[in-house]
Amino acid sequence: MLHPAAIESSPGPALPLYQRLAATYSAAMALGTLQAGERMPSVRELMARHDISLSTALQVLRYLEELGHLEARPRVGYFVRSAATGLPLTSEPDLSQPVQPNPHAHFVGINEHISLLLERGRQAEVYMDIGGCTPPPELFDHHYLNKTVTRLLREHPTLLSQGRSLLANQGNHPLFQQAMARRALASGIRVAPGDVLATTGNSEGVSLALAAVAQPGDMVAVESPTYYGLLQVVESLQLKTLEIPCSPRTGMSIEALELAFQTQPRLKAVVVVPELQMPLGARMPDENKARLVALCAAHGAALIEDDSYGLFVEGQQAVKPLKAWDSVSGHVIYCQAFNKSLAPGLRQGWMNAGQWHGRVQMLKFAQSRNTQTLGQLVVAEVLGSPTHQRSLEKLRQQLKKQREAMARLVARHFPIGTRMSLPAGGLCLWLEFPAEMSTSDLFTAALGKGIRIAPGSMFSNSGRYEHCMRLACTHPVDAVMERAMQELGAMACQQLGQDVRG
Amino acid sequence: MLHPAAIESSPGPALPLYQRLAATYSAAMALGTLQAGERMPSVRELMARHDISLSTALQVLRYLEELGHLEARPRVGYFVRSAATGLPLTSEPDLSQPVQPNPHAHFVGINEHISLLLERGRQAEVYMDIGGCTPPPELFDHHYLNKTVTRLLREHPTLLSQGRSLLANQGNHPLFQQAMARRALASGIRVAPGDVLATTGNSEGVSLALAAVAQPGDMVAVESPTYYGLLQVVESLQLKTLEIPCSPRTGMSIEALELAFQTQPRLKAVVVVPELQMPLGARMPDENKARLVALCAAHGAALIEDDSYGLFVEGQQAVKPLKAWDSVSGHVIYCQAFNKSLAPGLRQGWMNAGQWHGRVQMLKFAQSRNTQTLGQLVVAEVLGSPTHQRSLEKLRQQLKKQREAMARLVARHFPIGTRMSLPAGGLCLWLEFPAEMSTSDLFTAALGKGIRIAPGSMFSNSGRYEHCMRLACTHPVDAVMERAMQELGAMACQQLGQDVRG
Repeated sequence: MLHPAAIESSPGPALPLYQRLAATYSAAMALGTLQAGERMPSVRELMARHDISLSTALQVLRYLEELGHLEARPRVGYFVRSAATGLPLTSEPDLSQPVQPNPHAHFVGINEHISLLLERGRQAEVYMDIGGCTPPPELFDHHYLNKTVTRLLREHPTLLSQGRSLLANQGNHPLFQQAMARRALASGIRVAPGDVLATTGNSEGVSLALAAVAQPGDMVAVESPTYYGLLQVVESLQLKTLEIPCSPRTGMSIEALELAFQTQPRLKAVVVVPELQMPLGARMPDENKARLVALCAAHGAALIEDDSYGLFVEGQQAVKPLKAWDSVSGHVIYCQAFNKSLAPGLRQGWMNAGQWHGRVQMLKFAQSRNTQTLGQLVVAEVLGSPTHQRSLEKLRQQLKKQREAMARLVARHFPIGTRMSLPAGGLCLWLEFPAEMSTSDLFTAALGKGIRIAPGSMFSNSGRYEHCMRLACTHPVDAVMERAMQELGAMACQQLGQDVRG
Repeated sequence: MLHPAAIESSPGPALPLYQRLAATYSAAMALGTLQAGERMPSVRELMARHDISLSTALQVLRYLEELGHLEARPRVGYFVRSAATGLPLTSEPDLSQPVQPNPHAHFVGINEHISLLLERGRQAEVYMDIGGCTPPPELFDHHYLNKTVTRLLREHPTLLSQGRSLLANQGNHPLFQQAMARRALASGIRVAPGDVLATTGNSEGVSLALAAVAQPGDMVAVESPTYYGLLQVVESLQLKTLEIPCSPRTGMSIEALELAFQTQPRLKAVVVVPELQMPLGARMPDENKARLVALCAAHGAALIEDDSYGLFVEGQQAVKPLKAWDSVSGHVIYCQAFNKSLAPGLRQGWMNAGQWHGRVQMLKFAQSRNTQTLGQLVVAEVLGSPTHQRSLEKLRQQLKKQREAMARLVARHFPIGTRMSLPAGGLCLWLEFPAEMSTSDLFTAALGKGIRIAPGSMFSNSGRYEHCMRLACTHPVDAVMERAMQELGAMACQQLGQDVRG
């Protein structure tokens, strides 16, 4: 349960009225004032109760529905779907602060930091990992995957013994290229099959993209907080990161990025996860996408899009990649991996490098030659199949269930004043503890009890997320998980001098 | 058939007497004067005929045996093994020339050059590829490979759906690590299983190694000629190559490298293929290996060893990697891939990064995360099996047969004055045409007739191999190959103004 004090302070006056009202209702759900299955006040009731317009009342209900808290029953009204999962985080980035990169902060050895965490994590006896965000194998349809591999090897008996001559081709299997091009078309992107490059997961795609568009010493804008892997890539290429504030609802602040372009002449690339941003879970509105694509084009910067999480958006909403707005200049580099959605063990991804296609192809060839063909064929076969569509939908549902269950455990056991994100899908929640919390200390304490977490310091070079953590929701929530969350919550409460809860 | 004129001019006075005599005999074999199965003159005959000492006569015979031209039958004498394959190339690097890197030559856009060749190669209709050096699928035991994959998927049903948490481990499968460590031990290297890093082929290993040990602007010593992939890696990392002369028999000149260290303070790394150097096929003598390892240690440079071709050394000679001499400082980075020897389609390799293990692990993780597990397990299973040992031996024999057949076709159809390497195994021959030849022009002409070759310009940034080419011997020599070689020979003769031969 979240402390009511948080309700007043968190949304802040910068938010539109409908969002502030929605936050109040989701808090009421978190507090149990509104229970799952209960009827939500109607449009008329809301108008009267808060003295608001019809349009605002509708917005409140639609927003809560979009967040997954309400479901509409035609001609009856809106009902609370399940115990709500907390409060929106402080939502909009603070744009009063000009984006001045701290010369010491943006290149501080994130690789060292992460390696250290890694090493400590590896040496510990761990019974529960809520740090890593890859779903466990039982959530994938491995029978179908294995059957597909066996069939492919029967149909293409020399698949594993088939090399790819440098002089003959570039190691991208035509069937894979076609499948990705078809897939792209379905989400509004035109990619010629020949412009599809197979990659090892997504790190390779983003890494190649950055190497192609920036020189050592150049600057790369990233979301803040961001996926630590990206910080590692940027650092390993001797580039500098510029962290752009990111809203947990709408993603990277376009205004802050605009300011960054005005003040940073060496800003050569922007890396964005437009759908279910990692770790916040933000979904960038289409309007912002259009502005972002135009802004980068205007400043001659590459826009590198990581679209690996769009697949996890729940519900029937259309998901349109940034690349769909890049119809002329080819300055958007599109990257997608199927590690988390189809088969983590295959490490299969692809990219379309737009105007940098030739250069990326060259770098890819120099650095790792072609990507294994088997993985390409498996993905090409599986991706469009009804079986996989069903598995993916099942995975989404399962993740949703797990996310909600984890959120309930946070509400029950975690310190008063803890806030969390409300993503519209995906693999994790982002938690903000009260400011005096140190999740680095919590990491150490938790590891001592066999629980691995991902502390906020992994997600930024700035140190500003020391009181935050990413909570993986990839594991089914069973008694062991409940115990782990209770233990973790108790440790966090103790650190803050609060009574242990739940 | 080689022109007798070549016999006199090619070995040159710099060669020791026994090598010059051996060259005369291998020329005689190429000319058919000495036929396969014929008895070689005895030690006494040689002493009398050439007025040489017993020791020199023995050296001649042993050298020819070492080159694979003779076989000893105990108590009977030496016999010609098969049609000999030509003349040794000008053997020892010219050390009178100090190694002064040409500031324009060592960074001239090999990537552009190769991409251009690639693009042209792709657009042509090709019926015969003697440019690429990967054996065709029928030379591998794909039944066994596929059966192994199927079995592994049965035994580890969640292999493909199993991810690797960054916080939990580094994506190197323990079974793979153990198998590689055992394998290393058998060739005289001590590697702890935990220090085995799985890589995508070998390009990734060498690329990571270079990124770990050198900074943009630093210099890397490579063999000349060298594998074009290495030139691409060096360029893509914004390093500079320094080409060190390489003997077709003993590999990189240690003397030239010594000189390079004295004059180039930014020389941070040396990349060497000690066994069956690509493309010359040189085998570095153990004595040179020891000197090379010591030299790099003395200058604080990393020595990056690509040991992917040692597996192709024919006969029973022990093959000892450079890494075996690196007992103290850990400055040798060992890389090995199984693309060409086990399964080109798997793209599986590994490396041991010595003192740079942590940094390479970090870079690998940043750039491509973990390598697919299936490939690691397949290699771990297959590598030590008797079935694979038999396949590999069969592959070696087949390659030898093909190399010899290709050499005969060169001798029959190629221009007078053409010389070629005599490697002790491996996938290719290196040809030196008369100096006025342009293999870039030959590339274009051949492509017009549907034949793809690898021109000498791909193997150096210096332009000094314009009259050379690498000839892949990976295809079985059938009527189609004979026609291709005849056509190619005719084009080469025409370019030189010689009568078409054969």
